[in-house]
Amino acid sequence: MIVQKYGGSSVATPEKIKAVASKVKKKVDEGKRVVVVVSAMGKTTNSLIDLAKEVTPNPPPREMDMLLATGEQVTAALLAMALSSEGINALSMNAFQLELMTSDHYTNARIMDLNLAKLQKELAARKVVVVTGFQGITEAGDVTTLGRGGSDTSAVAIAAKLGVPCEIYSDVVGIYTCDPKLHPTAKKLAYITYDEILEMAALGAKVLHSRSVEIAKKYGVELYCASTFSEERGTYVVNALPEWLEQPVVTGATIDANQIKVTLNNISSDVEVISGVFNSVAERGLNVDMISIVNVNGHGHITFTVIGGNIQILRNAIEKALTGFSGWGIHEDVDVAKVSVVGLGMSARSGVAARFFNVMREAKVKIIATTTSEIKISALVHKSDSGKALKALIDEFKL
Amino acid sequence: MIVQKYGGSSVATPEKIKAVASKVKKKVDEGKRVVVVVSAMGKTTNSLIDLAKEVTPNPPPREMDMLLATGEQVTAALLAMALSSEGINALSMNAFQLELMTSDHYTNARIMDLNLAKLQKELAARKVVVVTGFQGITEAGDVTTLGRGGSDTSAVAIAAKLGVPCEIYSDVVGIYTCDPKLHPTAKKLAYITYDEILEMAALGAKVLHSRSVEIAKKYGVELYCASTFSEERGTYVVNALPEWLEQPVVTGATIDANQIKVTLNNISSDVEVISGVFNSVAERGLNVDMISIVNVNGHGHITFTVIGGNIQILRNAIEKALTGFSGWGIHEDVDVAKVSVVGLGMSARSGVAARFFNVMREAKVKIIATTTSEIKISALVHKSDSGKALKALIDEFKL
Repeated sequence: MIVQKYGGSSVATPEKIKAVASKVKKKVDEGKRVVVVVSAMGKTTNSLIDLAKEVTPNPPPREMDMLLATGEQVTAALLAMALSSEGINALSMNAFQLELMTSDHYTNARIMDLNLAKLQKELAARKVVVVTGFQGITEAGDVTTLGRGGSDTSAVAIAAKLGVPCEIYSDVVGIYTCDPKLHPTAKKLAYITYDEILEMAALGAKVLHSRSVEIAKKYGVELYCASTFSEERGTYVVNALPEWLEQPVVTGATIDANQIKVTLNNISSDVEVISGVFNSVAERGLNVDMISIVNVNGHGHITFTVIGGNIQILRNAIEKALTGFSGWGIHEDVDVAKVSVVGLGMSARSGVAARFFNVMREAKVKIIATTTSEIKISALVHKSDSGKALKALIDEFKL
Repeated sequence: MIVQKYGGSSVATPEKIKAVASKVKKKVDEGKRVVVVVSAMGKTTNSLIDLAKEVTPNPPPREMDMLLATGEQVTAALLAMALSSEGINALSMNAFQLELMTSDHYTNARIMDLNLAKLQKELAARKVVVVTGFQGITEAGDVTTLGRGGSDTSAVAIAAKLGVPCEIYSDVVGIYTCDPKLHPTAKKLAYITYDEILEMAALGAKVLHSRSVEIAKKYGVELYCASTFSEERGTYVVNALPEWLEQPVVTGATIDANQIKVTLNNISSDVEVISGVFNSVAERGLNVDMISIVNVNGHGHITFTVIGGNIQILRNAIEKALTGFSGWGIHEDVDVAKVSVVGLGMSARSGVAARFFNVMREAKVKIIATTTSEIKISALVHKSDSGKALKALIDEFKL
């Protein structure tokens, strides 16, 4: 048994959907039982967002999800049709039918559970089940979506629940040391660890939705990322590299321009107040990234970044948390980008941080903020500096 | 409380959806609680059908319904957004959420029930509920659609269940004696009876889905048909005309070119065999219309017409019913049209049939088959004759 996920560019046209059906058929002919998870066709999700924007600049998130969920349902139905015309017993299932339950964070919901019995009943009847990615339903029966790239999460969650491997197909041949579209010398990785890809995905590598990798890591789901329409070998995402492979110090370099930097001045330095701010932001499904807290004369100053997200929602969250307090100030800056290097090898080798900061200094890049983990070093820089910063890191670490 | 239904041309663009929202807002401002039932935007359903045809010439009906149901969900979400931006508390509901249960005749399902409590809970909270027309779900949880024009049926079924009036808005100002696009002299009717519109709808007048009128008649739902974007007075569909109105002999003339004529030769004249054929056709959700049965030397010859429908499904149905019999033949003819006049006044006045056949004779129209009811006379003619046949009837009965 296997779960396969096909991204939007892989199902962009009826011809491509038929080609995907042929690819699925091969697995069926090999005797596999297959669950296919699909995204919306090509740029459908963007078109639907544009349509909503034509109606109102601030569509209610519940209705936005109701709207966007149609994209995946179209693809799922068309792929089930294409499979049927290949003589394969197939049926599509949407979130209602699969009872794919999520939290009620509209536009960015989290998967809670799904009805495994329903899925297995169809698989036991030797049907290929084509599942709508990206969508779920709340306990109250409202439609939700899982955020950009959420179809990966749907696929891995289903694979985890079934206890089977998951293949993620897209228009990219595999996972590279850096973005091959921007850096033609980028190298394809045969293997990468969950931890590394997790850092890379969270940093905006756009290879895999980070939550999908979290789930894969937690449940030990074997992941394989490859191109839909090429036989070229892709990248395995594993817990640890095979022993015969030498672990490089740095595996990849990434850039994330989708950050909002928030500065809060003169708030209470009381831990309860500060945690109240982050709780309020988290409740709205916004992901806080880099955090720096400074106390001066009993006043707290916080700088943090939020990945993506809506500034208005963010402001509302903070204002709600600081209701009753006065004298504080807020400033947002979207003209920032985060540049990072990731590598499991870092934890065993010293001097990587020094090399990182040397490179930045030589490239005359101003570092606004920095964070490090055992396997990652990140710097927040001005957007205009981010390109040369990444180029310098790629050269230094031979990516 | 009121149910309003807006057809595809009324919600074809974001601008029109916003205009519909303003129209709904007027009712809300008058203190009404409103349920809005919407069709897919403009030609969306046709585009989705074309998309399916690009994937396979014979899409499985279950998947077809899964595909088509997305059209109404898009409109419902967008209209709920437009209403919200007008400051109205609104939410969209699809068939899963409304638990709008249907039979499992994919592409032509019948409504069985809906969850009134869920609907009333939202209405009680003073929300405008925007319901996806045209779609339902089966007991097994599969998506169905109600056939062309099925959004009318959705709207009237909801109005019936709520016990409230129903307004059907489209790009037509009301119901006419004949098609005003083809016959500019057509007269708009201020009132028409359920029975008359029922005959007209079934005959292809395309004004109202006939099942919607059946439900309206059965449950006494007040119907009002008018134009979305005009203040011109429309047409009330009632049980009996107001007493002060003189009932014309003939209220309307219609043409239905969407007929398939089927001739079965040399089948057993056993009633069980004949009813077996019609049962088998009915099981596939096909509507049989004009039936003639002739027995010659113990052999049965049947001619009947089917409204719309797929010839292959029709053939399969008949072949299944006649399994084990040999020597019979089948012939289909799509080059036919049905021309009819309808009028409640017919039942009280004699001579209408004679005038009908005289007109046909004078216009040199060959009648292939004919049926009559208390309030209707129909003739099946060659498609090429249908235009002049209708013109002659319009002149004769001053429509």
